[in-house]
Amino acid sequence: MFAGIALAALAAIPFSAQAQFAKAEDAVKYRQSSLSVMATHFSRIGAVVKGEKPYDKTAVEADAAIVEMMAKLPWSAFPAGSNVANSKAKPEIWSEQDKFKAAADKTQAEVSKLSAAAKAGDLNAIKTAFGAVGQSCKACHDNFRNK
Amino acid sequence: MFAGIALAALAAIPFSAQAQFAKAEDAVKYRQSSLSVMATHFSRIGAVVKGEKPYDKTAVEADAAIVEMMAKLPWSAFPAGSNVANSKAKPEIWSEQDKFKAAADKTQAEVSKLSAAAKAGDLNAIKTAFGAVGQSCKACHDNFRNK
Repeated sequence: MFAGIALAALAAIPFSAQAQFAKAEDAVKYRQSSLSVMATHFSRIGAVVKGEKPYDKTAVEADAAIVEMMAKLPWSAFPAGSNVANSKAKPEIWSEQDKFKAAADKTQAEVSKLSAAAKAGDLNAIKTAFGAVGQSCKACHDNFRNK
Repeated sequence: MFAGIALAALAAIPFSAQAQFAKAEDAVKYRQSSLSVMATHFSRIGAVVKGEKPYDKTAVEADAAIVEMMAKLPWSAFPAGSNVANSKAKPEIWSEQDKFKAAADKTQAEVSKLSAAAKAGDLNAIKTAFGAVGQSCKACHDNFRNK
């Protein structure tokens, strides 16, 4: 498994960790920061997928590894009561927690496929996996994030 | 090596990558986001080191792995001209690039020791390594970040 050891350690991160953030604002900042770093590297792969940038296996593999790691982080940072400040979180995150968790799990599963394709160096597989990740991002945003 | 495969992939990240960010503001957001995620997990280890939280090997190992990975990211996001917006970056980052790179390398080296100590489950070694990481953060902030 790609990055197997690191990801095994990260598996210790709880999906829900109310006590991890002293203030709701800290949780908002953390989840926005981790999603932002993930989006930066995902969009770099997107430039390759769209043909705007030449395919460089090493670069795409590094970007996909970062996406995979970042994709594990945000979900522990939606404690109850953290729908504050400049958060775009919809109340459905808390009223439909099972659905939200399923969406988060789906994204992580698709991201792992993207990372595997990047490691294999198969550009067609990368394109397919990139599209599936993008759809999982969009589905979660449509259901759980205000515009 | 802990997280060896993932970190090998991340070694492909260039220290300086002017072309990676379309706008200076994007670079600022990226470096602030990655440093913020790193700080969150570093401070969780700090709570254990200070005795505010009981020592849990699995949790500290996961936090240290995230710190180690995040510590590789910000340095590519200081392109020339990105001393803008709400950045606290001092001009010395660009006028003393060798010194800045040395500070970044020092932090990454200390963070790797912290991760190794966390993996070994040696709380005394974790405390020592935590202090060294903290000093390397402070040294870089003192020299290269406005208050």
